[in-house]
Amino acid sequence: MIAKVYITLKNGVLDPQGQAVQKSLHLMGFQGLSSVRLGKYIEVCFEDSISKEKAKEELKSMCEKLLANTVIEDYRIELP
Amino acid sequence: MIAKVYITLKNGVLDPQGQAVQKSLHLMGFQGLSSVRLGKYIEVCFEDSISKEKAKEELKSMCEKLLANTVIEDYRIELP
Repeated sequence: MIAKVYITLKNGVLDPQGQAVQKSLHLMGFQGLSSVRLGKYIEVCFEDSISKEKAKEELKSMCEKLLANTVIEDYRIELP
Repeated sequence: MIAKVYITLKNGVLDPQGQAVQKSLHLMGFQGLSSVRLGKYIEVCFEDSISKEKAKEELKSMCEKLLANTVIEDYRIELP
């Protein structure tokens, strides 16, 4: 089972990396962008013996403890 | 309009960063993971004057030219 985790900066937290990308895109001639924000996308593959409920619980714990910095980042978990 | 872009390593391309995360999770006591792969998640916000078709076309071009390294990475575009 492949779970997907999306980690994004919270609203209001500055994203200099995103701003740099936006500036580059603008310089390359892409018009009409109002903002670009970067985040992380993580695919976690569980062995088949793990149930969906157990996986969800573990993923939440992983995000809180390692994958996301919950002070400045939000996370979203997607299970198939 | 907010478009979402997912950038992932192609199958077969080694992901040392993902392996490091997997190892850390294992050491922290999370069992039953068969793989962890990291990618990027980008939110691109277009001004309202841009049509969906135009945005899709521009995003494709952005990915090919700047956002993704198409030699080793795949990209997926999601429009609302």
